[in-house]
Amino acid sequence: MPIFGRLAPVSQRITGDSGQMIRGDAHDIAWRAPYAAADRIRKGQPVMPCIDLNSDLGEGFGPWAMGADAAMLDLVTSANIACGGHAGDPDTMRTTLALAAARGVSVGAHPGYADPLGIGRRVIPMEPAAIANMVAAQTGALIAVAALAGVRVGYVKPHGALANLAADRRDVAEAIVAAVAAQPGGLAVLAISGTELEEAARSAGVPVFSEIFADRAYLSTGRLVPRSRPDAMIHSAETAAARLLDFLDSGLMPVVDGPPIPLAAQSVCIHGDSPEAVEMARLLRAALTARGVTLAPFIGV
Amino acid sequence: MPIFGRLAPVSQRITGDSGQMIRGDAHDIAWRAPYAAADRIRKGQPVMPCIDLNSDLGEGFGPWAMGADAAMLDLVTSANIACGGHAGDPDTMRTTLALAAARGVSVGAHPGYADPLGIGRRVIPMEPAAIANMVAAQTGALIAVAALAGVRVGYVKPHGALANLAADRRDVAEAIVAAVAAQPGGLAVLAISGTELEEAARSAGVPVFSEIFADRAYLSTGRLVPRSRPDAMIHSAETAAARLLDFLDSGLMPVVDGPPIPLAAQSVCIHGDSPEAVEMARLLRAALTARGVTLAPFIGV
Amino acid sequence: MPIFGRLAPVSQRITGDSGQMIRGDAHDIAWRAPYAAADRIRKGQPVMPCIDLNSDLGEGFGPWAMGADAAMLDLVTSANIACGGHAGDPDTMRTTLALAAARGVSVGAHPGYADPLGIGRRVIPMEPAAIANMVAAQTGALIAVAALAGVRVGYVKPHGALANLAADRRDVAEAIVAAVAAQPGGLAVLAISGTELEEAARSAGVPVFSEIFADRAYLSTGRLVPRSRPDAMIHSAETAAARLLDFLDSGLMPVVDGPPIPLAAQSVCIHGDSPEAVEMARLLRAALTARGVTLAPFIGV
Amino acid sequence: MPIFGRLAPVSQRITGDSGQMIRGDAHDIAWRAPYAAADRIRKGQPVMPCIDLNSDLGEGFGPWAMGADAAMLDLVTSANIACGGHAGDPDTMRTTLALAAARGVSVGAHPGYADPLGIGRRVIPMEPAAIANMVAAQTGALIAVAALAGVRVGYVKPHGALANLAADRRDVAEAIVAAVAAQPGGLAVLAISGTELEEAARSAGVPVFSEIFADRAYLSTGRLVPRSRPDAMIHSAETAAARLLDFLDSGLMPVVDGPPIPLAAQSVCIHGDSPEAVEMARLLRAALTARGVTLAPFIGV
Repeated sequence: MPIFGRLAPVSQRITGDSGQMIRGDAHDIAWRAPYAAADRIRKGQPVMPCIDLNSDLGEGFGPWAMGADAAMLDLVTSANIACGGHAGDPDTMRTTLALAAARGVSVGAHPGYADPLGIGRRVIPMEPAAIANMVAAQTGALIAVAALAGVRVGYVKPHGALANLAADRRDVAEAIVAAVAAQPGGLAVLAISGTELEEAARSAGVPVFSEIFADRAYLSTGRLVPRSRPDAMIHSAETAAARLLDFLDSGLMPVVDGPPIPLAAQSVCIHGDSPEAVEMARLLRAALTARGVTLAPFIGV
Repeated sequence: MPIFGRLAPVSQRITGDSGQMIRGDAHDIAWRAPYAAADRIRKGQPVMPCIDLNSDLGEGFGPWAMGADAAMLDLVTSANIACGGHAGDPDTMRTTLALAAARGVSVGAHPGYADPLGIGRRVIPMEPAAIANMVAAQTGALIAVAALAGVRVGYVKPHGALANLAADRRDVAEAIVAAVAAQPGGLAVLAISGTELEEAARSAGVPVFSEIFADRAYLSTGRLVPRSRPDAMIHSAETAAARLLDFLDSGLMPVVDGPPIPLAAQSVCIHGDSPEAVEMARLLRAALTARGVTLAPFIGV
Repeated sequence: MPIFGRLAPVSQRITGDSGQMIRGDAHDIAWRAPYAAADRIRKGQPVMPCIDLNSDLGEGFGPWAMGADAAMLDLVTSANIACGGHAGDPDTMRTTLALAAARGVSVGAHPGYADPLGIGRRVIPMEPAAIANMVAAQTGALIAVAALAGVRVGYVKPHGALANLAADRRDVAEAIVAAVAAQPGGLAVLAISGTELEEAARSAGVPVFSEIFADRAYLSTGRLVPRSRPDAMIHSAETAAARLLDFLDSGLMPVVDGPPIPLAAQSVCIHGDSPEAVEMARLLRAALTARGVTLAPFIGV
Repeated sequence: MPIFGRLAPVSQRITGDSGQMIRGDAHDIAWRAPYAAADRIRKGQPVMPCIDLNSDLGEGFGPWAMGADAAMLDLVTSANIACGGHAGDPDTMRTTLALAAARGVSVGAHPGYADPLGIGRRVIPMEPAAIANMVAAQTGALIAVAALAGVRVGYVKPHGALANLAADRRDVAEAIVAAVAAQPGGLAVLAISGTELEEAARSAGVPVFSEIFADRAYLSTGRLVPRSRPDAMIHSAETAAARLLDFLDSGLMPVVDGPPIPLAAQSVCIHGDSPEAVEMARLLRAALTARGVTLAPFIGV
């Protein structure tokens, strides 16, 4: 049964025989469109679909809690842990790391603008070089607290406004990738599928995995429908689960303005910052496992 | 000429036939009086005294500068760099790291209470476990920014009120040592000579070096005369230099309440937070080099 | 029916022939046991007991919520609102002020150590003069946001570790009183009954009201049984309500180490930072109103 | 000799038979060219030109100093004091207020984005309502610390990126004006001449004064030449002084792209954040006084 292992070395070039397949695979051919019907037919083999579920966790701040971390850690396979920038503090990091490790959940650093009052959702004007320093400092903080807890940090996923900026601006994306690439241990990047961050990591030879959102509608450009539009959100867990199963089956994502598009994804981002979000996460997980989808971290614990 | 090299593993006992080799083993009892006349007599060899000069640097905060970092980096051999706790921020860390590296100055993390308005000089009540998390997070932040800058962080020296607490309280000292020991790369501790921190590191098998203060008077207990006393400070650079040269020659430190006491030290802490402090640092360095003392980092760059 | 009115000027001595007038003068000796049977007998009149319920509210921080402010504002008559020091921020202040005003709840400033990660429960070493500046700044912040919301701030109650320090240290108490006294509008102090803060305010001629805790046991010194002792807390709402009704009737507080002691109080502090705390507040309020106790702010809205 | 007095109520139209009276009414059209030759000719009287010099001060942060506050307070007539948002803290506020009061310098609140690492020079995305709350909180903090110091705060001048935004965006300007208008005591606004903030204050009936910059070149729109252009700054103190004297004489400001334009100003903003800036301030002041210009606060101390 396919289990995500440690990422293959970048130098192992993959030739790929279709566009989305190449895009889909951070380093392995199978990754390029991991669940594509075409691939299964070509191989004459059944494929066990496999996906990671990630969520933003550890977003408390000192005495203030945020979200239902313990409940979500029972549902996800990867935890993006706040690093004291947009949220989090050394004790919260430590607690969240221990909760994740106890459940075999993979851990990533989740750096964001150092703006707790805005919880990292406001763009703070910064030069790319300053963003690189900030991402390095936050990532290093989590790595060191994780070392103290005996836990390994496997990847970095930027948070909020920083992630959105890195999706569109190559210089910001490259700054983040530089901060990640400088750290030892083969730290990977978890990027929103189809973004500049994904490309920047790939160009730099940094291991990169991609995520999609189960509860968001897409445009034919591959970007999310803006939240300001009424059709931005998928409110029904049943609909979200059905869309996700179709995507895992076909490698194609439905969009609001055209035919489905191929998207690469090794992970699905699910929210856990409200009781409703936790409930949707639970339903999504149940629907996936009921259909035989293996849930596993994209990077080894 | 004796240069401090990378710290030897603790298990690798050094019998030492010359001063610098004895100096290389932070755990050998010989450290207690590294330049003792007895040793020189026994060996029948002249010993080139060798010492490190360290200073607390990178203590700016965003737009606010503190001290004369560039001037001090021309004088010291080791730089204790603030990690965003009591002072410092990712950009200031990066800048200070680059300045140090350009001068071949060794770099250590300088974690302190996360209390910028008090610049780490106020005791913030915290459990030892929380102190360990805080020290890990700050140390990791500097290590990661240093990695981005291509610089290696070799040691950790706690700052201000945290250092004072770790001098007396074994549980705090052990928390700091645990945070250091958990990090990869053989990170060392730089402790005030004769403190619980020094002992805790030694007990834990963590490489440890000790510092004395050139501009502070000592008690026969080995502790500093409290600043509240009129005889706490050595105001004259000439006096400070003479004391230091005597100490390097004899391994004995004069105290205000008895005969000189043996103190271990591989480093001398010098202040740089005022024009007068920089001037004293300059005079001390000149006096040391004029007498043939080699100034070198206690841990390799 | 007796309602607390705007505080009378200190110079305006009140001889008092009815409950509310005696209650109106924070400086009259009668406050020491405002509902004493002796007074009722002397007057030959029934006295309607009247008390204020206060709670610490507005303790969210940016995106992070704390406690059930709206539920508590339906129960209390005075709201101590965090001022951006230990908790709170301008938007949270504004929201909480509006919620209080909509319910006719009286509003006070609740300054604390500027230590959000410790939520003001850690003593931060500060000179009294610095404490005065800090209390002034935080109080002024709330007053000005309240002015923008069209709400009047009537009093100041220090928070957490600052309140505890001001209970015992006269210099800290005087610093807080100085910060309050300097503000226009006859701002009052709400102090823990029997503390140095209460005395310092009275000595300075600053209007002062006193609070007791319904869920805490007392010592014969008038201080709370430390939380470290197993008998520190009153866990049962029924017991707490019975104690409170007895106190209102007699002016005497039961203590764990002797006969009941007279305590002055115009307000009862109730907690609302957990579902259990809100439920106890609800039961206390119901028990008081069922026995005909009037619940009213000690200072006019 | 003309001295600026307390601002006259807006409704009290002043026709003006002397320079200072015309200057006293911030809302009179005559302000547009307060020292115009036409007026002097019409009156048949000499006019003593009178201007205020303001500077941004109190921008230290805890242990970190910024600028030469004491030196600048010997030169200016109004001090814009940071309120703990972009810079400043309660102790620094108190110290700066005392220094200003000791020299008879008028005091204003200088609120900015609560972003110390960016020292208020980065736009932090905020709704106008949140800006109003923030400006109120910061202004109130300074007012209350000033009350403790026995000093009156007369006006509010927004700082940095907030001031720039309020220059162009009417909703932001109105939010700031609302926060100021809600405070008691006739608090005024000090706005950059010709901005939305100036208009918003005037529309709301809030006392408003305007400032120009001595060391910046202007466009014919009345706005500053952007710093990105090589001709943005006036580097020579002599040139700056000559321009300022011409402006005071004519009410006309030279621009880089056309004939001089009329600008209203009761104050000149001078910088003090570098030794060069202090020296230019000294030269400007000397040049003004040498020509008989009276330097006085636009609002009474």
